[in-house]
Amino acid sequence: MSTASSASPSLPSQIQIQLPDGTIAKHPGDTTAMDIAKGISEGLARSVMAAEVSGKIVDANRPLGELAQDDSPMPLRLLTNRDSESLDVLRHSAAHVMARAVMRLYKGVSLAFGPTTSGGFYYDFDIPEKISEDDFPKIEAEIKKIIKEKEPFERFILDRDEARKLCNDLEQDLKVEHIETGLGDQPTVSFYRQGEFVDLCRGPHIPDAGKIKAIKLMSIAGAYWKGDASGRQLQRLYGTAFFDKKELAAYLERLEEARRRDHRVLGKQHGLFAINPEVGQGLCLWLPKGARVRSTLEDFLRKELLSRGYDPVYSPHIGRVELYETSGHFPYYRDSQFSPLFGSEAGGMIDAWTQRLEAGTLGKDDEEKLMEAAKVLGADIPDYKPSASNEEKRAVLHRWQSVHERYLVKPMNCPHHCHMFKAQPRSYRQLPLRLFEFGTVYRHEQTGELNGMLRVRGLTQDDAHIFCTAEQVEAEFKATIDLTKFVLEAVGLRDYRVQLSLRDPKSDKYVGSEENWTHAENALREVMQHSGLQFNEEQGEAAFYGPKADFMVRDCIGRSWQLGTVQLDYNLPERFKLEYTGTDNATHRPVMIHRAPFGSMERFTGMLIEHFAGAFPMWLSPEQVRVLPLSDKSIDYAVAVAKQFDEAGLKVTIDNNDGKVQAKIRNAQLDLVNYMAVVGPKEAEAGHVALRDRIEGDLGSMPIAEAIAKLTKETDERIVRQAVQGTVDGAAAVDSGATGHEY
Amino acid sequence: MSTASSASPSLPSQIQIQLPDGTIAKHPGDTTAMDIAKGISEGLARSVMAAEVSGKIVDANRPLGELAQDDSPMPLRLLTNRDSESLDVLRHSAAHVMARAVMRLYKGVSLAFGPTTSGGFYYDFDIPEKISEDDFPKIEAEIKKIIKEKEPFERFILDRDEARKLCNDLEQDLKVEHIETGLGDQPTVSFYRQGEFVDLCRGPHIPDAGKIKAIKLMSIAGAYWKGDASGRQLQRLYGTAFFDKKELAAYLERLEEARRRDHRVLGKQHGLFAINPEVGQGLCLWLPKGARVRSTLEDFLRKELLSRGYDPVYSPHIGRVELYETSGHFPYYRDSQFSPLFGSEAGGMIDAWTQRLEAGTLGKDDEEKLMEAAKVLGADIPDYKPSASNEEKRAVLHRWQSVHERYLVKPMNCPHHCHMFKAQPRSYRQLPLRLFEFGTVYRHEQTGELNGMLRVRGLTQDDAHIFCTAEQVEAEFKATIDLTKFVLEAVGLRDYRVQLSLRDPKSDKYVGSEENWTHAENALREVMQHSGLQFNEEQGEAAFYGPKADFMVRDCIGRSWQLGTVQLDYNLPERFKLEYTGTDNATHRPVMIHRAPFGSMERFTGMLIEHFAGAFPMWLSPEQVRVLPLSDKSIDYAVAVAKQFDEAGLKVTIDNNDGKVQAKIRNAQLDLVNYMAVVGPKEAEAGHVALRDRIEGDLGSMPIAEAIAKLTKETDERIVRQAVQGTVDGAAAVDSGATGHEY
Repeated sequence: MSTASSASPSLPSQIQIQLPDGTIAKHPGDTTAMDIAKGISEGLARSVMAAEVSGKIVDANRPLGELAQDDSPMPLRLLTNRDSESLDVLRHSAAHVMARAVMRLYKGVSLAFGPTTSGGFYYDFDIPEKISEDDFPKIEAEIKKIIKEKEPFERFILDRDEARKLCNDLEQDLKVEHIETGLGDQPTVSFYRQGEFVDLCRGPHIPDAGKIKAIKLMSIAGAYWKGDASGRQLQRLYGTAFFDKKELAAYLERLEEARRRDHRVLGKQHGLFAINPEVGQGLCLWLPKGARVRSTLEDFLRKELLSRGYDPVYSPHIGRVELYETSGHFPYYRDSQFSPLFGSEAGGMIDAWTQRLEAGTLGKDDEEKLMEAAKVLGADIPDYKPSASNEEKRAVLHRWQSVHERYLVKPMNCPHHCHMFKAQPRSYRQLPLRLFEFGTVYRHEQTGELNGMLRVRGLTQDDAHIFCTAEQVEAEFKATIDLTKFVLEAVGLRDYRVQLSLRDPKSDKYVGSEENWTHAENALREVMQHSGLQFNEEQGEAAFYGPKADFMVRDCIGRSWQLGTVQLDYNLPERFKLEYTGTDNATHRPVMIHRAPFGSMERFTGMLIEHFAGAFPMWLSPEQVRVLPLSDKSIDYAVAVAKQFDEAGLKVTIDNNDGKVQAKIRNAQLDLVNYMAVVGPKEAEAGHVALRDRIEGDLGSMPIAEAIAKLTKETDERIVRQAVQGTVDGAAAVDSGATGHEY
Repeated sequence: MSTASSASPSLPSQIQIQLPDGTIAKHPGDTTAMDIAKGISEGLARSVMAAEVSGKIVDANRPLGELAQDDSPMPLRLLTNRDSESLDVLRHSAAHVMARAVMRLYKGVSLAFGPTTSGGFYYDFDIPEKISEDDFPKIEAEIKKIIKEKEPFERFILDRDEARKLCNDLEQDLKVEHIETGLGDQPTVSFYRQGEFVDLCRGPHIPDAGKIKAIKLMSIAGAYWKGDASGRQLQRLYGTAFFDKKELAAYLERLEEARRRDHRVLGKQHGLFAINPEVGQGLCLWLPKGARVRSTLEDFLRKELLSRGYDPVYSPHIGRVELYETSGHFPYYRDSQFSPLFGSEAGGMIDAWTQRLEAGTLGKDDEEKLMEAAKVLGADIPDYKPSASNEEKRAVLHRWQSVHERYLVKPMNCPHHCHMFKAQPRSYRQLPLRLFEFGTVYRHEQTGELNGMLRVRGLTQDDAHIFCTAEQVEAEFKATIDLTKFVLEAVGLRDYRVQLSLRDPKSDKYVGSEENWTHAENALREVMQHSGLQFNEEQGEAAFYGPKADFMVRDCIGRSWQLGTVQLDYNLPERFKLEYTGTDNATHRPVMIHRAPFGSMERFTGMLIEHFAGAFPMWLSPEQVRVLPLSDKSIDYAVAVAKQFDEAGLKVTIDNNDGKVQAKIRNAQLDLVNYMAVVGPKEAEAGHVALRDRIEGDLGSMPIAEAIAKLTKETDERIVRQAVQGTVDGAAAVDSGATGHEY
């Protein structure tokens, strides 16, 4: 049925275009967004990069008639270099320019794909010659030449036969392969031409290469054709591009700043945490200093939760597979879970035997072992008889398996908490019941995704589950939003917004009644509107089990982190058949709310390390004050001073190394200790310390009690003054690898 | 070579006997311990039950010449009804008497075995008729008849042929089977006769049945011949016996008291914890009230540890199998561990495939799946080729397996802490380094051994590892003993002794140098001698890796619990190659000390529940005070009062149920709330509460501040006044199932 040809598709003679201000005008069918821009002002036209037509981003010089579905007016937004959508278009074009430069400089280049990323773009090539970073100046020079030529990007359509022929002529075998096998039943494909460079490409692109005002090659890496390790090996060239040089410079500075704040480097340098391959990748060992930070955060939150009517609980870190079958987490999420384990080695053997029986590969040897096993496994195990039918054997093995229970290291705490709800009869008088726990869960993230404390395989959630009536949802949601706000502000994070994820009204994937959803979504919106917080609603982003709110927090170098989360859940109460007796004496199903203001201790602490560049504010600091004796003679006094600090609840150490006090101060500064208390004979005589602030320097000599009062006040009031701003006003967020965990 | 006969073995004509006071006397070879007792006094002879000769317990009427090894004097201790060893002899004889009664009353009885237990004795029978508890009076009546006959227990020896013939004549087929298959190459066996009742038995026994002054049948259960579930099914009759009726009564009362204090019953009744089969047996769900107790204990200990120079750490709950191979915990302890788990399901599959390859049962289907798998498993996986040799295939699978790491849920925290020690370069200046953590570990105890919180599969140790120099061992050991003492006394446990477990000087199973052991054992003994604590030394009870000290604590009903433990370790520092730089700038190996004052949170809390019969002292109480409004009209005031209690840090609730205050008081008493604050209009007007003490009753009306001061004082000073003594002075300990965990 495909009859597409390389000729332009026929255009309607007339179209209607609606501008963002609502005005509707008629235009000829071949009018482009650029034509309309020019009609407004030449200056505007110069800054137009692309257009959004009926919600779709397209080339600015695309005849708008091609996009018409019917006679109705088409909404048009001109995208200039000020619109965030344009950056992606620019970078995609930059990838073409880079590929063009590479083809000019190297022989035998096969093009693979060249997409954009959150920080720039890359292109994968098969090139006989090996490119290194030393080649970047040469390639960048060629890129600049191309940009200067300001050639336009031109789009054209071919049917698949024509497309294959073109790519064949261009000696682009990977493109040929993609046209043959990678396009499904798509009848036509689009190409973009820029001078001698032609590329199979969906677009859109900027009008001409001259719009690229700043471009830089970043790095080179290996890659595989279509990610298949058994396929062709390619060279991947990474770059980034911006509309102006200042933005590029700011981005590079931000990258440098992020590198300087890398929690993995700081974590090692300051003894905060360690990851050891013999223990396991993605499994944090919290060293004393990091553990002190975490423990301060946990104590702070625990105290806050107790005063807000939460109840503490503890649950084990494993649970039977059946538990997660009930919750639906198994086998659904098995790809991101550690495999099940057994009560004993015997359980694993039985599993293997069962598999062999199913596969028809259970040998004579096995059968003998099985008969042996029946004895070893003990009293309540039926005999295995080689003469039995496969069905009978299967039943016996199944029975054995049920004795040797399978467990999962828990991927989440909710199923355990559901059983805690069920452990006692519940009445409306006990609701809302708020169970909290610092619960460590395990998820098998891919090795390549692991990143220090930020992306791990074992994470401790500051988890809680609120069981409440439908009427209580609004108040409880408000309380959790207040709590999260309180917690974030306590660590000095004030730049955040809340994303409210609601149903897709067109989908029927959601569990829970229409009435409950409507009630809950209205309640959530109501709470947000009265919260005074910035928030946005995202239709269709809710989990299937309920709407949710996520706190998106910007750190001091402008990166965005998804931290606290609040999620309603109509699913688990159903699956676990949770019930309470209402005022009407009938049984009802409670609503469940998952929430975690920090998210996880690992991720939150990792973020704080980067946010504070390792220099924790006083109340979170693992070493608040270090006593520096001028010489050995003052050690006794130093010990006495430290004792007083310690008794006041301050985290204090003594530097009893040999060496001059200048060196000790330098070390304390490098170790990011908040205060130094220098003590010598003069101080000893006066009962003083010479106090030094890491940030402000010397504060002079003062009585010990005064120093203690000052430090204690800063701790107790949780004053955050050390959050060093990045050197750059971060416009775009650096990719933080943030991902939300659903429950 | 066996020539034994039923004739008495030939006796030496003369023997030398040494009494405990050191006197040595000559006696004819056929002299018995009873003869010697009679020589001292007839009264003594009447109370003699058995004798200890050269360290072995024997019948009082056994010719002592039979026990002579050579001419040297034989030490003799006469065991009367006052010696604890006699109770076991008495009960063994009671088992014979019970069996004799059963044989008189039932037909076709086959005797199996009849040993003693820590609380009494049992005998296993194969009887065609089913015995029930209704039959107990009949059997007990027959037992009393036998006791009245005061017949002696008479020992005789037969060779195996004679023994088999005798048992055959007696129609005791199980005894015949045991003689034929259960005795190894033992040439002769002993029997005991009491009237018409003859039993194959090692003895020893009391002189005559008349010594049994109190005996009672306890229960009946099923059992298997030699514990083999495929063997004959037997009926097991349990009983207990004492030297006098008062002791029996006290024992029964203690049993009843223990039942009343059963932490499983109290735990459920008061919502302290739950165990749910869908979550898993042996896995505690700590409900809010229990969690509050645990959390109070943890906070208390954490604060104490920080002030004693410990550093907090956190470690994950899983670790790679390699970690435990390094530590030696795997595969050595695999029988008590959960099976390994994998990073993903694929890991488990590979394991199964490897097993099939080894077994030669890897089929064609498998091979196809394996080739598929190579693609799924990703980039760094070599191809599986069906044409390869088995050796090559094995290598490929091994390589795959190494990508899909195996983990264990951690059976202990030490390996993780060793890696924390190694995470930074260590110098003598940092030692002792004391790393502490409430670390949850998992061990697969047998289902039959599980017991509420006391014997579990997931336990949170109040664990710490001290890394120190050999010279620091003494001071650190002293500090840990002080800490354990402090902790036990804080919960009101003052009745304990320390068992010091030392090397067996004759064995060579120990790791660590002779010098270190000698130094350490001397240091430990020195510390204990100066500690003022009761202690005993047990040669040969040390772990192979170092000496240890265990706190054996008696609860208020006289049961003994092994709680806190301190263990030296020369093994793990070696295995993990731990090193520090000494003052001499050379590298040295530290010594490691494991210690846990509570032992585990589960076991300690379970013990406390039983010790306090659920009524925790103020500072540990999950509900310290309950406000009881006289009626609905006083609810506002009740809320205001509760708020003040809460702000003072007290654990407070309000009883806002309908109903009279008498009912509210009754409920609060039943719920074991420490204090009740009754409030009505009178109290509201005066700003008072009518305070009520659960133990002492009404304390009268007082200003809120006064009540708060009183309750806060009792909390802060950790006053323990509720440890209700058992109604009985417990002589023998009730079996508490206590077992020490080695590291």
